[in-house]
Amino acid sequence: MIFRSLVRGPFQRAARTTAKHALRQVVRKLSPAQPGPPPSTWRLDRDAGGELRLDGTKLETLFERYGSPVHVVDGARLKENAARFIARPPGASKGCEVYYSYKTNPVPGVLRLLHDMGVGAEATSPYELWLANRLGVRPEGMVYNCPAKPEASVREAIALGIQLLNLNARQEIAPVAAMARTLGRRPRVGIRVAVPHGISGQFGERIDDGSAFNAFAEALACPELNVVGLHAHLNTEIATAGELAAFLSAILEFSDRLRSELDLELQIIDLGGNLACPTVSHKGALAARLEVALGHQAAPRAPAAVLTIDDYVKQVMITIEKHYQAVGRPAPRVFAEPGRAMTADSQMLLCRAGQVRDADASGVASVVLDAGINVAESLRSEYHQLFNLARRPDAPLRHYRLTGPTCTLGDTLYPFVELPELKLGDGLAIMDSGAYFVPYSTCFSFPRPAVVLVEGGRDHVLRRAETFEDMVALDGPLAGAG
Amino acid sequence: MIFRSLVRGPFQRAARTTAKHALRQVVRKLSPAQPGPPPSTWRLDRDAGGELRLDGTKLETLFERYGSPVHVVDGARLKENAARFIARPPGASKGCEVYYSYKTNPVPGVLRLLHDMGVGAEATSPYELWLANRLGVRPEGMVYNCPAKPEASVREAIALGIQLLNLNARQEIAPVAAMARTLGRRPRVGIRVAVPHGISGQFGERIDDGSAFNAFAEALACPELNVVGLHAHLNTEIATAGELAAFLSAILEFSDRLRSELDLELQIIDLGGNLACPTVSHKGALAARLEVALGHQAAPRAPAAVLTIDDYVKQVMITIEKHYQAVGRPAPRVFAEPGRAMTADSQMLLCRAGQVRDADASGVASVVLDAGINVAESLRSEYHQLFNLARRPDAPLRHYRLTGPTCTLGDTLYPFVELPELKLGDGLAIMDSGAYFVPYSTCFSFPRPAVVLVEGGRDHVLRRAETFEDMVALDGPLAGAG
Repeated sequence: MIFRSLVRGPFQRAARTTAKHALRQVVRKLSPAQPGPPPSTWRLDRDAGGELRLDGTKLETLFERYGSPVHVVDGARLKENAARFIARPPGASKGCEVYYSYKTNPVPGVLRLLHDMGVGAEATSPYELWLANRLGVRPEGMVYNCPAKPEASVREAIALGIQLLNLNARQEIAPVAAMARTLGRRPRVGIRVAVPHGISGQFGERIDDGSAFNAFAEALACPELNVVGLHAHLNTEIATAGELAAFLSAILEFSDRLRSELDLELQIIDLGGNLACPTVSHKGALAARLEVALGHQAAPRAPAAVLTIDDYVKQVMITIEKHYQAVGRPAPRVFAEPGRAMTADSQMLLCRAGQVRDADASGVASVVLDAGINVAESLRSEYHQLFNLARRPDAPLRHYRLTGPTCTLGDTLYPFVELPELKLGDGLAIMDSGAYFVPYSTCFSFPRPAVVLVEGGRDHVLRRAETFEDMVALDGPLAGAG
Repeated sequence: MIFRSLVRGPFQRAARTTAKHALRQVVRKLSPAQPGPPPSTWRLDRDAGGELRLDGTKLETLFERYGSPVHVVDGARLKENAARFIARPPGASKGCEVYYSYKTNPVPGVLRLLHDMGVGAEATSPYELWLANRLGVRPEGMVYNCPAKPEASVREAIALGIQLLNLNARQEIAPVAAMARTLGRRPRVGIRVAVPHGISGQFGERIDDGSAFNAFAEALACPELNVVGLHAHLNTEIATAGELAAFLSAILEFSDRLRSELDLELQIIDLGGNLACPTVSHKGALAARLEVALGHQAAPRAPAAVLTIDDYVKQVMITIEKHYQAVGRPAPRVFAEPGRAMTADSQMLLCRAGQVRDADASGVASVVLDAGINVAESLRSEYHQLFNLARRPDAPLRHYRLTGPTCTLGDTLYPFVELPELKLGDGLAIMDSGAYFVPYSTCFSFPRPAVVLVEGGRDHVLRRAETFEDMVALDGPLAGAG
């Protein structure tokens, strides 16, 4: 912005372009592209011909049956992640109770698979509550967290008798109590708090200014409410043991205060989500701008630096059990609401190169993919590993700018990336599409892709690709315009 | 980012919070919130009870019939905009030929209304080409501009004999010529160019490095192609006469070169879109961050500073006709592909306050609306005027942070805005939702809203609201998860 407004006029712009090209060469030498994790990280391998496979299924063959782009869910990895989240960690008396964050990847076929593994539903909207119900999730398997809950959805949640109804703000206490009185039910409620010095935004009552304490006091004064839970999200990514420890410590300290000052023995501590996906790196706004300006690939972080699911569950359960042992009280139940950490790395987006242009003066060739921000909006702010579906022998490495198919400048997925040479029609796998790709998809100029499950060498469709007719299904008959 | 990483730890964070609150007060004093344009700018008025009306229709009443949120199209303004774009400006021998940018607001009811006014279709994807066809647009009324055109769509465009097929890159020339040969048709093609020192990104061949000239030479050597047009977008907003003049001058200079060096007399100059909407202000990344950090409302620009549709068309036609008079040749046809300038200000998004919280330490109260980035993604980078639907007598002005209903921190529509006091359930009108709101909508936790036409005191639905069932229509039967 500032740079741009300082350097205006055609001559200055030409000078800027030249300077930028020179700077790009330097940046690339100083900080070469990182290869990132290998295909085996995602249980992928290559056959003798160099074709990428998942569980024996050659990914390229999926285009024929399901079109391009297409989401591919790795059923085995999804089950493995679910099993890790619900496992009792060594040294703990029990494990977490796990409610999957529906908003992260609300594909019924994915949700059903998780429910079959014993995972519950975390709904954050009336739609998600409805969907959990339609998928046959029992009320004990539902947590409802919508920031501003429409009245009808509160009525439904209370009437169903769901596991936990989390109140986002003091303003919800009186109306929910009134509704409970009307229905003659006593709902199990939690109150969402924001830990000290964390980001709260529109979520929860702050611990550090006394609002959270006051909200608990107010709720406990309502005989219609069964106040059983404390709910919190860190609201920023949890990637290390230190970040998790600080979060747990703030919650446990507050739970002690609730017991000592309000005589409230919490039955449930609901820790929300926020656990990172090890193979996805967040790109800050500055890093994203530098990528565009300088053609510099953001270095993905090392997956080994990120807390695994097992380590997360173990640290959570051991920390909480130890704390309660120390104060001589029984530990509460612990809820986890994973989203990203559960499904991100069990899904990938396959797409194709629709146009391959010549390299520009700085050696970067533009490639237009058939998937763009319409289906991969997260790539604006995240770095995701990607692989050529076919590996040609002796294909040289090239520098590419990968853009999407929509007619807008902002549709750039990888401002700069180094890949084995691409040809028109070549397939690519964009990894970790199982969090926020599907729910952030739009119908911007193109229909939305199919979601396909691959497991044990077989594949079947979970959600079919949208058709042109589907895209105008809410518009009534399309009579001619004359 | 840098700020955040420098200032870490609980004590520093507490100090930062205090400093921020103090700074907020100063910033607000130095730069008070701007009221922005009044309701009459959009043909809105208030009845005796203070209720906002469009063409006699009380906006609040639309919630009862169509739910909330809901898009409201002002039919009269839409027709007025179309009439202005197609009008012959005073002093010119003719006007522009206008092709509406389908991607900007692809609601069939809106498109039909534009087509009835004599506006054609600018399609940028196979879907949009299909839609134009389904809406009964004749081939002479279609321009096709997709950055990487799938083969089947090129075949369709050639077989239909559309008005203009614009090639985005040199790489398209040979395949399109081959397809034309196969079909035995000679399509009317244009070549997209990027003007010197403009942003090109993935679009067009650059004039300044000779690529555009070479592409024309290559296309002219293909007897299968009828090279009639030059296509360009500035790719950044055109808001002033100066910006438009520089753009036209670059195009006319290049068209002279095509005539003198390639003996090509262009039949069509296609100027693309990019004309600004006067009542929408772009927010740069820095301004957006300051809004969040300091609670400072971005000042919308003065609408009078922005080129009107009439001024744009006049300047375009007069400049081009004068240029061609000077060189003693007949002026080519001029195509315009407006998107934002045609429809942005003829639509608004009505929504309701779903939760109103108490003011925080800096005097800002959080309000959760029932519309968020799921339906108004543009608000991340644009400032849009907004109005309370009801004006209560003596309602004091308050400071609000308006967030959306989805369970994500990023769902903040107005980080800081001054409005007459809001109560739970109050309606708001977010203006200028007619560009990029509908196509950038997602199904993130909530169904997509209805689009309603209001004209002459009557209203009817153009696109019905999505239902929960619609949201899983592509997923097959939702059998219980057991």
